[in-house]
Amino acid sequence: MINERLPKIWYGGDYNPEQWDEKTWDEDVRMFKLAGIDVATLNVFSWALNQPDEETYDFDWLDDKIDRLYKNGIYTCLATSTGAHPAWMAKKYPDVLRVDFFGRKRKFGARHNSCPNSPTYRKYAERLASKLAERYKNHSGVLIWHVSNEYGGYCYCDQCEKSFRVWLQNKYGTITEVNKAWNTRFWGHTFYDWDEIVLPNILSEEQPGEVSFFQGISLDYRRFMSDSLLECYQLEYNAIKQHTKDIPITTNLMGTYLELDYFKWAKAMDVVSWDNYPGIDTPESMTAMNHDLMRGLKSGQPFMLMEQTPSQQNWQAYNALKRPGVMRLWSYQAIARGADTVMFFQLRRSIGGTEKYHGAVIEHVGHEQTRVFRETAALGTELQHLSEQMVDARVHAKVAIVFDWENRWAVNLSSGPSIALDYIEEVHKYYAAFYEQKIQVDMIGVDEDLSKYEIVIAPVLYMVKKGYAKKVETFVENGGTFVTTFFSGIVNENDLVTLGGYPGELRQLLGIWAEEIDALHPDNKNKIVIKEKTGNLQGQYECNLLFDLIHAEGAEVIAEYGDDFYKGMPVLTKNAFGHGNAWYIASSPDDTFLNDFVSSICEDKNIKTLLQADSGVEVSERTKNGHSYLFVLNHADESRNVYLGESERTNLLTDKIQSGTISIEAKQVMILGNQQLGDL
Amino acid sequence: MINERLPKIWYGGDYNPEQWDEKTWDEDVRMFKLAGIDVATLNVFSWALNQPDEETYDFDWLDDKIDRLYKNGIYTCLATSTGAHPAWMAKKYPDVLRVDFFGRKRKFGARHNSCPNSPTYRKYAERLASKLAERYKNHSGVLIWHVSNEYGGYCYCDQCEKSFRVWLQNKYGTITEVNKAWNTRFWGHTFYDWDEIVLPNILSEEQPGEVSFFQGISLDYRRFMSDSLLECYQLEYNAIKQHTKDIPITTNLMGTYLELDYFKWAKAMDVVSWDNYPGIDTPESMTAMNHDLMRGLKSGQPFMLMEQTPSQQNWQAYNALKRPGVMRLWSYQAIARGADTVMFFQLRRSIGGTEKYHGAVIEHVGHEQTRVFRETAALGTELQHLSEQMVDARVHAKVAIVFDWENRWAVNLSSGPSIALDYIEEVHKYYAAFYEQKIQVDMIGVDEDLSKYEIVIAPVLYMVKKGYAKKVETFVENGGTFVTTFFSGIVNENDLVTLGGYPGELRQLLGIWAEEIDALHPDNKNKIVIKEKTGNLQGQYECNLLFDLIHAEGAEVIAEYGDDFYKGMPVLTKNAFGHGNAWYIASSPDDTFLNDFVSSICEDKNIKTLLQADSGVEVSERTKNGHSYLFVLNHADESRNVYLGESERTNLLTDKIQSGTISIEAKQVMILGNQQLGDL
Amino acid sequence: MINERLPKIWYGGDYNPEQWDEKTWDEDVRMFKLAGIDVATLNVFSWALNQPDEETYDFDWLDDKIDRLYKNGIYTCLATSTGAHPAWMAKKYPDVLRVDFFGRKRKFGARHNSCPNSPTYRKYAERLASKLAERYKNHSGVLIWHVSNEYGGYCYCDQCEKSFRVWLQNKYGTITEVNKAWNTRFWGHTFYDWDEIVLPNILSEEQPGEVSFFQGISLDYRRFMSDSLLECYQLEYNAIKQHTKDIPITTNLMGTYLELDYFKWAKAMDVVSWDNYPGIDTPESMTAMNHDLMRGLKSGQPFMLMEQTPSQQNWQAYNALKRPGVMRLWSYQAIARGADTVMFFQLRRSIGGTEKYHGAVIEHVGHEQTRVFRETAALGTELQHLSEQMVDARVHAKVAIVFDWENRWAVNLSSGPSIALDYIEEVHKYYAAFYEQKIQVDMIGVDEDLSKYEIVIAPVLYMVKKGYAKKVETFVENGGTFVTTFFSGIVNENDLVTLGGYPGELRQLLGIWAEEIDALHPDNKNKIVIKEKTGNLQGQYECNLLFDLIHAEGAEVIAEYGDDFYKGMPVLTKNAFGHGNAWYIASSPDDTFLNDFVSSICEDKNIKTLLQADSGVEVSERTKNGHSYLFVLNHADESRNVYLGESERTNLLTDKIQSGTISIEAKQVMILGNQQLGDL
Repeated sequence: MINERLPKIWYGGDYNPEQWDEKTWDEDVRMFKLAGIDVATLNVFSWALNQPDEETYDFDWLDDKIDRLYKNGIYTCLATSTGAHPAWMAKKYPDVLRVDFFGRKRKFGARHNSCPNSPTYRKYAERLASKLAERYKNHSGVLIWHVSNEYGGYCYCDQCEKSFRVWLQNKYGTITEVNKAWNTRFWGHTFYDWDEIVLPNILSEEQPGEVSFFQGISLDYRRFMSDSLLECYQLEYNAIKQHTKDIPITTNLMGTYLELDYFKWAKAMDVVSWDNYPGIDTPESMTAMNHDLMRGLKSGQPFMLMEQTPSQQNWQAYNALKRPGVMRLWSYQAIARGADTVMFFQLRRSIGGTEKYHGAVIEHVGHEQTRVFRETAALGTELQHLSEQMVDARVHAKVAIVFDWENRWAVNLSSGPSIALDYIEEVHKYYAAFYEQKIQVDMIGVDEDLSKYEIVIAPVLYMVKKGYAKKVETFVENGGTFVTTFFSGIVNENDLVTLGGYPGELRQLLGIWAEEIDALHPDNKNKIVIKEKTGNLQGQYECNLLFDLIHAEGAEVIAEYGDDFYKGMPVLTKNAFGHGNAWYIASSPDDTFLNDFVSSICEDKNIKTLLQADSGVEVSERTKNGHSYLFVLNHADESRNVYLGESERTNLLTDKIQSGTISIEAKQVMILGNQQLGDL
Repeated sequence: MINERLPKIWYGGDYNPEQWDEKTWDEDVRMFKLAGIDVATLNVFSWALNQPDEETYDFDWLDDKIDRLYKNGIYTCLATSTGAHPAWMAKKYPDVLRVDFFGRKRKFGARHNSCPNSPTYRKYAERLASKLAERYKNHSGVLIWHVSNEYGGYCYCDQCEKSFRVWLQNKYGTITEVNKAWNTRFWGHTFYDWDEIVLPNILSEEQPGEVSFFQGISLDYRRFMSDSLLECYQLEYNAIKQHTKDIPITTNLMGTYLELDYFKWAKAMDVVSWDNYPGIDTPESMTAMNHDLMRGLKSGQPFMLMEQTPSQQNWQAYNALKRPGVMRLWSYQAIARGADTVMFFQLRRSIGGTEKYHGAVIEHVGHEQTRVFRETAALGTELQHLSEQMVDARVHAKVAIVFDWENRWAVNLSSGPSIALDYIEEVHKYYAAFYEQKIQVDMIGVDEDLSKYEIVIAPVLYMVKKGYAKKVETFVENGGTFVTTFFSGIVNENDLVTLGGYPGELRQLLGIWAEEIDALHPDNKNKIVIKEKTGNLQGQYECNLLFDLIHAEGAEVIAEYGDDFYKGMPVLTKNAFGHGNAWYIASSPDDTFLNDFVSSICEDKNIKTLLQADSGVEVSERTKNGHSYLFVLNHADESRNVYLGESERTNLLTDKIQSGTISIEAKQVMILGNQQLGDL
Repeated sequence: MINERLPKIWYGGDYNPEQWDEKTWDEDVRMFKLAGIDVATLNVFSWALNQPDEETYDFDWLDDKIDRLYKNGIYTCLATSTGAHPAWMAKKYPDVLRVDFFGRKRKFGARHNSCPNSPTYRKYAERLASKLAERYKNHSGVLIWHVSNEYGGYCYCDQCEKSFRVWLQNKYGTITEVNKAWNTRFWGHTFYDWDEIVLPNILSEEQPGEVSFFQGISLDYRRFMSDSLLECYQLEYNAIKQHTKDIPITTNLMGTYLELDYFKWAKAMDVVSWDNYPGIDTPESMTAMNHDLMRGLKSGQPFMLMEQTPSQQNWQAYNALKRPGVMRLWSYQAIARGADTVMFFQLRRSIGGTEKYHGAVIEHVGHEQTRVFRETAALGTELQHLSEQMVDARVHAKVAIVFDWENRWAVNLSSGPSIALDYIEEVHKYYAAFYEQKIQVDMIGVDEDLSKYEIVIAPVLYMVKKGYAKKVETFVENGGTFVTTFFSGIVNENDLVTLGGYPGELRQLLGIWAEEIDALHPDNKNKIVIKEKTGNLQGQYECNLLFDLIHAEGAEVIAEYGDDFYKGMPVLTKNAFGHGNAWYIASSPDDTFLNDFVSSICEDKNIKTLLQADSGVEVSERTKNGHSYLFVLNHADESRNVYLGESERTNLLTDKIQSGTISIEAKQVMILGNQQLGDL
């Protein structure tokens, strides 16, 4: 449980009383209560208020707000407000300002704007966190610490350049090792001195859009920047922990955000929290994958939904309203996949600034007679009724999909074979196939223990880190099913190619050799021709993007290409290895193939769908103390059927007992509980 | 009349004799006379010639040109040539050079390149204007002063930053007021000192494409820059006036040019002039709207068409020739809408530089045996015959459309709800509906007196300035018809939301409340379903872009949405208020709706079409001393009909008396005069 | 012959042993021999290795490589490695770093990165070339010198600015002449001092995409930069020649690369070499045109194919594999058009850096059991069998197409009439028509002697250089057929318009006057209506892009426009001049027109197809000592027919004697030799 003080699904969100007057504060509290809100995130962007100059700190306003809320039964998620430095600091200490990718020294403005290696920033951010922790360490209203906000962005200033060199020295020891790791004899880039190394941006090795002329340095720079920002977080974390050991600490992440290695970050967080902002065209399965990934960051520990909008966003191209019921539906989607909080940005809309058209529980009109408020309040009430039964329940999966930020960076930075290769898209294709079949998946990092899974899928496992091939071999030897794809096993952690034939370290496990990799425009399709019916695979399918020209070296050829000069070469192979099997999919297949493929390997492993339901219905399960909670979410615009069969389940939202074929209305949610959980 | 010395429609254009030799000058004069040219704009880009170094001025060449022209009956529009500083000045005083949006200090090059807050630029520009005025104050050949050229562009240098702080101090008095006006507690942007404020560009608060993270500062910066450039103009204006009180002063504007608040500028101009460069795909109604807007800048006072091309441009993507007759047609379009001059860029084509492929009266071939020259000369002759009867005639309208630069900036800078919202497009949609029905419209600013109008339309009146709601209420109370649309009444002059429900200050007048604003991709359409036939409105229409979810609070619901979850909610309402009505159009309707809507409200007000004519025919009317001049312009590629009915009119271009149904050839023009003007 | 030491078609490519260890070197040599490789290009990017600091030089590693290869019968193409400076040099002497188009000083990174006017770069590049030449001047393994690599890119630093002013002084003598040449009175740009002139980039006169506000300075800057880089080359060339007079020197060019005037460069090269990287959509005729252009640089002298990929590239969007047979096919295409070498980038794939996914003879798998190696080895064997019979054979053409870099720059920089005008595309259209008809063409510069040709085609001869009109007149007077197009004869070498009517200096020769130039969106087509059948021209065709409105002034009108207001005006004219004819094509015609037009003028001149063959089959001929070698290349995906008729030819690749109709398989090649060559 995140904090025993509030043993339920927390409900609330970002709250900026400092932008309002006393009269509004009273009205806020009245309306929060109406809405069943019990947590407010305070102090997210108030550094300039907390510290009006270098020596002065002023928390009186904050005392008042925390007290006022607590007296009304509302807890505080207390932010440290270091996500944007004060204007006076930028003026007095320009070292807090970043230099951008184009080498431009920035001025004061926007947010998430501090150089992570700025001594000034680090000093004052740490000090502010310390002062806040000291002041509120004993306040019963404080539920959790929220360090900074949505860490992100890179910096290219001189102090970062110097820090990068130190980081490299710590990692490599000698310049010779750097030269080796980056293969600097290519293009005559040999370094003789640490000071010759400059940051990779448009002035040196990179172009916009993750294009690099030297992958080694670009990859290490990303690791360094992710670490630099993490150090900033860690400084605040440590400062807080010195005062308040028992209150958990988090910072809000952003799903598959590109720039930070969240698996590394999660290790430094007491609980993962994240901000969920799907766009107008985001598939529900992509949102589900993000939730599963956030849950996976700490090996399944429940996480916080820190932000979502109650209605619309402001920063998308077309900021559609969430249709009636959708806010509730998506809130339950988060809970279904491991969230123990439902929180909004924002509780009350600002009147000025760039987010004034971002949805809020309390709209500009100011009263409760709005659709948005009604929906919010209804959900608040519902969540209170659900009580604590679901809190801390876990999600169990027999299938894992591997996701790795460093691998993703390397894939992005790779010059060739195709600009159309998108790591997230490829991972999502596999995820979506399981999602469609209502089979639970864990999104795992490369450090995760594999022994708890029956099936492990690692799409585009381009970079094979030290020891990982062995780990996968052990998994398969012990009976596991492993699946990987084209453009896998190519490089080591430094983006240096493993010689001796692709897929490198995975070659023996997979029993194949990929001789060449063809890349065509995505509109150019080839065929996957199944040789003879295998599980649910039969006939032919389509594939595109990349085409490995592989030779079976022990693997069984399940399907061949149907076109082009490599017609008849294998496109799908299965290699028996120990007690398990290792599959290789040599191109990017269509959804039909993936559904048939996924159902086949699941049947092999006797992994069953959580619940039979029509397309458009999402199903997920959380379990706790032997109880199962099946979440059934109808994302479709019409009603759909769910097939419970013989089994009897209680819909916790209606207390109705259900069995057989039941209809679920558009955008509706069911939470089907059992009395006793079976074989978990 | 602009200047009594030339009591006719002036005819001429930009002339750069300094690029040519004596032999050419003689030839120029010969051909100007052939073409009926009586005004030449001199000295537009000759600063380097007028002032070869810091202390030397040389106007001998200019004396000769003005004299030479005057002796041949050609007047001078005398420019001050401060639109581009000399290279020596940029070298010696780099403060004249701008810093661009990306923070880059520019070097010498291009034009319209001077920092408006450069002390050097201001000093020497003012001095040059003064010297010219002193020298030519008594020259009978000088008709009008032309200050600088096409003012525009912004600067982001340190001296502009300092001036911005002074501008803010003058406007707000205290930093506390600034913080309030910009709502700086959002994102912790509180300023404690003026020097902490930096200009909003890519280094601080903005991104390319009118994207800002802080609308308040971005809005004030635009006002400040418009004012800064205006101050430059004003310095020259004052310097000239000290010497020549009687000669009018102008500077050439550019229609709906984004960066300057022309309503404010026009106050400082004796006469408005502008450069009309429609692109290959510009609708004629857009050009008409631009003319009407330029006329509206000084409340209907006739304006100058300072520049248009006789044939083609050089700076568009595809520089199509003006088809035969089109130059004449478009020249009369300007006159029809209030222009008292027809002037070209340029009289003779340069042989080098970026505009050498821009059309000219005298082409590179050099002689008069060209289509372009023949058309130019024919028009020159025609304009001489028209004599002075039309000069100073006014355009009268019962309908006004509100146009406001500050509102436009605020709409552009708004983050959300939709990137597809284009203020100009929305205004033009309404304008085009009146244009199609041959009903005269005034384009007015927010300072304009409304009492002279029957109908006032303010599309997307997002920003409601102090007192404007009251002004509109009075207008409606007194019987006026007011129309506004979605996304109106939202903010005050500082882009701070008016609380208490959209459309804010307009809510009572309109009798509605807009609870939410949906934004969808423009391809997603909804329906406007008319409840029962109202005027010409019946059946259903389409709308898209934004969709206000409104509740009638007293207003009559004329139409409802036909789709989506707000099906059945009002999309068109009409509120009786005092003796008038206030309409609200909650989405962006299709053209059919607008035609039916506009004809309905005009019928209600007994506002009639100027003249029945087929589609493709533009009609406008100027009146003077009880005479009416109906301009009939056939923009179509085939002949069209015009229905005069019983009334008899004289075509001033042919002296033919017309009545009944008459045919007008493709690209042809008629000016139909009456003996005596009726009820004006 | 490039070098008598290896009297055959050289076969090899770029080789980077410095990235590998001894074991690999042995394996390399073994595999090179298997593949028939006899040339390896060494030391391309090894400056940092050759010169680890300012005073130390280390060539031991290079000694070993050259010796090792030579002992195994493999020659060295020895690069000077100045294509990328060492990191230590960038650190110690930042003057070697470029400033980019946006005014940004670069840091160390990428390649082709040295400021061409950097004193440091010039000093050390020259010194390195000298040291290499001194060391290897007597090494029998060195076949040719390869200076730097793929020269290109521009610099905008202060030292370049100063050098530009000196370059201008040398060219123009006085600032008055500069002002005249650039027409600086336009926009008041008059310069009074050399130091007022700044480089044209985004900070002054240009915008990205070859957009300039002042064509004169932009044109001279391009000449200056091409010269600056050429001076760098020349410094190394001279340094080498001082030591090794007999070994030829080259640098690898890049076909129609925009930034350098290769005709000027070629004069300084002993032999032309170039890198051929067609993209996935490049037409074969475009590649052929590039080869012909490279051959034309030195008036037909055989050239080197310095680089091509054996399989795929890494830097294109979609890096498709070369299909089976295509590498061989395209290698012969190079030979067919004058190449005496077939060389690859690269012999062994790197394991790290941006080109690790660029194809190589030895792939990452490391052994010879790959498709790519097998194809490479087969071609190596075949080339050894061909022996020296073809080496130094010439290509003879009766048709020349004029290509001029300065003209191209001027066309690109021109503001108007159409952004869709692409000089390369227009030239290629004409080239492709001859290619389709298997008629040999020379691509020539403006310095080339015209008397050897029957037909000279100069598409878009916008810039007519001093004396060139006279030269063409003489050619036509003597019986030649000259063809030019719209937008020709407009300006002189300074981009100043020739007054008196387009096409300026060509007007008399062509017997026409172009009164106006219309520009429409390329989707807007007009018709070319042939008045009466002329040669193969009859009926009507389409044209688009630009439309000159011409008047015949003595020329015969062959075709007229079929649409628009210039319907009936000439679009194709033919002017008898002396003993020849001068054609003018006033718009951009479709391919059908061009085929009919080209066949007509060839028939007039009795120029015959080299060989009748189906479409998709390319034919070219080289001749030597009275022998003819007809290359027949089937680019199609199916077999095609070739029609030898009565004549008997020997296929040198099979020793089979061929006559009559013969079939050639997809991607196959024939080299048809004769016993005795006829009338050459």
